Amino acid sequence: MRFDFVQEIEGRPPLVLGIDPRPELHGKRPLAAIRTYTLELMEALAGKIAAVKFQAAFFEALGPQGFALLHELIAGARVLGVPVIVDAKRGDIGSTAEAYARAYLEAYPGSALTVNPYLGGDAMEPFLRQAARSGGAVFVLVKTSNPGAGLFQDLPVGEKKLYQVVAEWLHGQAEQCRVGEWSRVGAVVGATYPEQVSELRSMMPHSLLLLPGLGVQGGGPLKGPGLLNSASRSLYYPGGQPDLQAACAQADAYLKMF
Amino acid sequence: MRFDFVQEIEGRPPLVLGIDPRPELHGKRPLAAIRTYTLELMEALAGKIAAVKFQAAFFEALGPQGFALLHELIAGARVLGVPVIVDAKRGDIGSTAEAYARAYLEAYPGSALTVNPYLGGDAMEPFLRQAARSGGAVFVLVKTSNPGAGLFQDLPVGEKKLYQVVAEWLHGQAEQCRVGEWSRVGAVVGATYPEQVSELRSMMPHSLLLLPGLGVQGGGPLKGPGLLNSASRSLYYPGGQPDLQAACAQADAYLKMF
Repeated sequence: MRFDFVQEIEGRPPLVLGIDPRPELHGKRPLAAIRTYTLELMEALAGKIAAVKFQAAFFEALGPQGFALLHELIAGARVLGVPVIVDAKRGDIGSTAEAYARAYLEAYPGSALTVNPYLGGDAMEPFLRQAARSGGAVFVLVKTSNPGAGLFQDLPVGEKKLYQVVAEWLHGQAEQCRVGEWSRVGAVVGATYPEQVSELRSMMPHSLLLLPGLGVQGGGPLKGPGLLNSASRSLYYPGGQPDLQAACAQADAYLKMF
Repeated sequence: MRFDFVQEIEGRPPLVLGIDPRPELHGKRPLAAIRTYTLELMEALAGKIAAVKFQAAFFEALGPQGFALLHELIAGARVLGVPVIVDAKRGDIGSTAEAYARAYLEAYPGSALTVNPYLGGDAMEPFLRQAARSGGAVFVLVKTSNPGAGLFQDLPVGEKKLYQVVAEWLHGQAEQCRVGEWSRVGAVVGATYPEQVSELRSMMPHSLLLLPGLGVQGGGPLKGPGLLNSASRSLYYPGGQPDLQAACAQADAYLKMF
């Protein structure tokens, strides 16, 4: 049976390991060190996490070799049987969106990609179609974790806010992409906005919600059906540096809070 | 004197060469063929264009080697003295936005990047800061060229539409980032929406407007101060395939229309 992101996630713990590598913390040969540390960490945490979330920006900032490392680590996660979320926040029109969908969802069947909704429905459609074809998922930005998220996302549109209008539209899409209880269409909601998490949990009852911001950004662990709490720095660099043992202890500590 | 995107653009023709490579049109060794064709084309068109616009998605879809080719071609354009726009539509929060800004604006000083506004002002700020530091520019999505652009962009926010609210906010930023007549903060407006181009030309009088959609998407050439008309397929693959001579003829034909 094929590896399906949504089915695989269902039975796993609600913690996501966010991977945002910082070369300055890895000595003289940072790419090789990031590679080794990340592979060892993913192996150590494989049974404790729902998925690994690779933050594409930190790999792109390392140039072509960094981008090659991203691909190597995505493949490494999948060899370990760990579901992958490529946190790239892509979004573009028609044929270009198709190219992004090929680059991540088709290249790694059964994986997920974060997507930006600003360009509209026809721009998101190639991502949804490819996720359905390859057993993957998309997590669309609804309410992001940053302090200034509200500048546009909270704008009033009639009686609603913009992020609520986005969520309603997404809910319609999500209902058409169900795989049992859950849908291939999920949403990104900052753990730093717990009220919005509750609200969106109700508005999108069959969507997995990816909640970045656990730990350093100040979000607390949030417990509930379909809530995936993502910790990056506090789990990948506990105590501010790479540390396999401390990361395992931190994962155990988080899991006790759910 | 350093190469400054905004100053360099001012004296150049208003045509942008959009590079969206399709491997299936380039025979048995597509990456090598795309490399050669693009370098020759950029050299042939160097005096006829404002900039080259690389569509990151089409390179990412070719995997790590495609991404390496993107970097090689960006460097190639700059060696030829042609300004570069990396059309990657990036957007993320704080430290992640900084990583994207490093990956493109810092890595290639004097270049420009397209940015998605959905995450808010604090998420765009690292891009604006880096553009100022490295003599570059950002083009923020306001009204995109796709048929469904209006789903969220045209939502009513009080008396305005969402894209107009985004444009007003950007205008405030643009005024703080002037380099003579023009600003380092530009906007993306689909050539397929000529009325919005006129409107945004008035609302953001010192912002360069990048207008994708000339040619295949149905946009006509639009003439006016600070308008950069971008043609991708119709100029990069005139007649549906790579053709150096036809591309030069098409560029001449476009330039006569301005």
